[in-house]
Amino acid sequence: MASSEKPGLLISFGGNALNVAEAPPSHQKEEFAVARKSLQGVIALLKAGYGTLALCHGNGPQVGQIFLQQELTRHDFPRQITLDVCVADSQGRIGYILQNTLDNLCREQGMNKRALAVITQVLVDADDPAFKKPTKPIGLFYSKAEADALVRDRGWVMMEDAGRGYRRVVASPAPREIIEIDGFREILSKGIILIGGGGGGVPVVRTEDGGLSGVEAVIDKDFTSALIARELKLDWLVILTGVDRVYRNFNSGDAVPIDHATADEMELLLAAGEFAEGSMKPKVAAAIQFLRAGGKRAVIAHLNDLVAAVQGKVGTHIVLE
Amino acid sequence: MASSEKPGLLISFGGNALNVAEAPPSHQKEEFAVARKSLQGVIALLKAGYGTLALCHGNGPQVGQIFLQQELTRHDFPRQITLDVCVADSQGRIGYILQNTLDNLCREQGMNKRALAVITQVLVDADDPAFKKPTKPIGLFYSKAEADALVRDRGWVMMEDAGRGYRRVVASPAPREIIEIDGFREILSKGIILIGGGGGGVPVVRTEDGGLSGVEAVIDKDFTSALIARELKLDWLVILTGVDRVYRNFNSGDAVPIDHATADEMELLLAAGEFAEGSMKPKVAAAIQFLRAGGKRAVIAHLNDLVAAVQGKVGTHIVLE
Repeated sequence: MASSEKPGLLISFGGNALNVAEAPPSHQKEEFAVARKSLQGVIALLKAGYGTLALCHGNGPQVGQIFLQQELTRHDFPRQITLDVCVADSQGRIGYILQNTLDNLCREQGMNKRALAVITQVLVDADDPAFKKPTKPIGLFYSKAEADALVRDRGWVMMEDAGRGYRRVVASPAPREIIEIDGFREILSKGIILIGGGGGGVPVVRTEDGGLSGVEAVIDKDFTSALIARELKLDWLVILTGVDRVYRNFNSGDAVPIDHATADEMELLLAAGEFAEGSMKPKVAAAIQFLRAGGKRAVIAHLNDLVAAVQGKVGTHIVLE
Repeated sequence: MASSEKPGLLISFGGNALNVAEAPPSHQKEEFAVARKSLQGVIALLKAGYGTLALCHGNGPQVGQIFLQQELTRHDFPRQITLDVCVADSQGRIGYILQNTLDNLCREQGMNKRALAVITQVLVDADDPAFKKPTKPIGLFYSKAEADALVRDRGWVMMEDAGRGYRRVVASPAPREIIEIDGFREILSKGIILIGGGGGGVPVVRTEDGGLSGVEAVIDKDFTSALIARELKLDWLVILTGVDRVYRNFNSGDAVPIDHATADEMELLLAAGEFAEGSMKPKVAAAIQFLRAGGKRAVIAHLNDLVAAVQGKVGTHIVLE
């Protein structure tokens, strides 16, 4: 789906697109400033004629803050929100910041283009193996006694973390279906910049009676991005991150950059354990899924290199064959 | 705009549609149960052929909780979010709960109808007189010394509250423009149930360079509902609340119910001080605005009476003349 000769793009931003890891913004206005910088490339693409753009974003720093505030206020405020609702909160927060910033940047460039952020539920399988082995740590460190109480009172899964105490761990199941995809399609077809699937989406499972019920888990936003991109028949999946491309032997003295590769080649490297868990591995796996489902090109590049990456100058470009 | 002979409706829910004031839910799942009860009337209207429905909702209890958690964690968590972002968080949270619940209820009734919640910015005038005289108290009570520090460090406006301490007060300016209205129109025209303008919308002002910038204020959701309803050319504005209709002499021994009235009649009563500030007064004023802008009928009724109210059996029905 593309409004011109240019390919339709799904651009997947990390949660750090709104954040400065080294010096977290001390006030909200700074998050808008960071978003403004992170979205410059999107505006340049619009000016270059890329009219069909969908954006997905991570929410690590934001949902981390929301969840921490639940824990820190648990004695004053017994009515805590569950993790699915924390993700929904973060979709509201980040959606507003991105939508506001994109609107302002477009206006400054004289472009009559608007963005719309939509709340997104994403179906996961209740019997996804990830639920049997939660791996993603979130929130505060607790003592053994506190951890035991949380297991008992809330059903949390707690895991000892390298001698620093106990932390909650949650599952990261695979996304199966974008519940709001019909609405996404309408928005995109009207030339509006779609912001959807934030934080990987609010995870829901199918209940016995066929309904949808939120679960306390987090979905990897790159897999959700790949799924949205294919459902919307977008041509390219562009995953933006903190490094300029994918490397073999990344953390060694002889790291080898990968400029172009096929899905099969990347699959072999992935199987050989080349890419870090929870970091580059899910990005490469999401890229492969996207291509095997009919996508034309997957690109993994640095957040600041969006335009050059789409122009084919930088980043890792992966095609089916 | 209506998909059938039935009028198109904007239904405005109070924040209490997700809440039980007397016994606040101790766990999130209970908010879904309350939402399910509150939305029964919407499902009945869909079954009765009302196909064009937009929903707006208040966020008092939810944004109150989000803001309180900011204050309670201020020592552990210096990076607080501003009030505009608190509203965006609440749009994510409530949007998810309403969207999920509506989808489930529709499916149970065999209806192929979906809901979509969108993040909404609402323009207010930077020189709205409300900013000169903030009136809406939010969050914790502070001592005089703490209040002075917050005025100095954060620029908050603090007000002494009936001997109980000092509280932050914020402005409640009038909504002027729904920034995302084009997206709303597309969603509604596709037969999707629109959820927008949550909590009255994220308040933004026009900056000197023409951009939009969030401000720390709260917009009355009934005025926002009236504006959305007219922009979408919806026929009826239905404001749901905790009483069964509007009354004259409400808090006296001889309260007189108002079943039918014209905008002019209600305006006279409003000017005579019949309706309570921050409660029935803004609802009546929003109803009058809606009718004078071309709306066909405004109804004010109890949350549980939606269907009977739309059938004309209960509630206060106001028309232009």
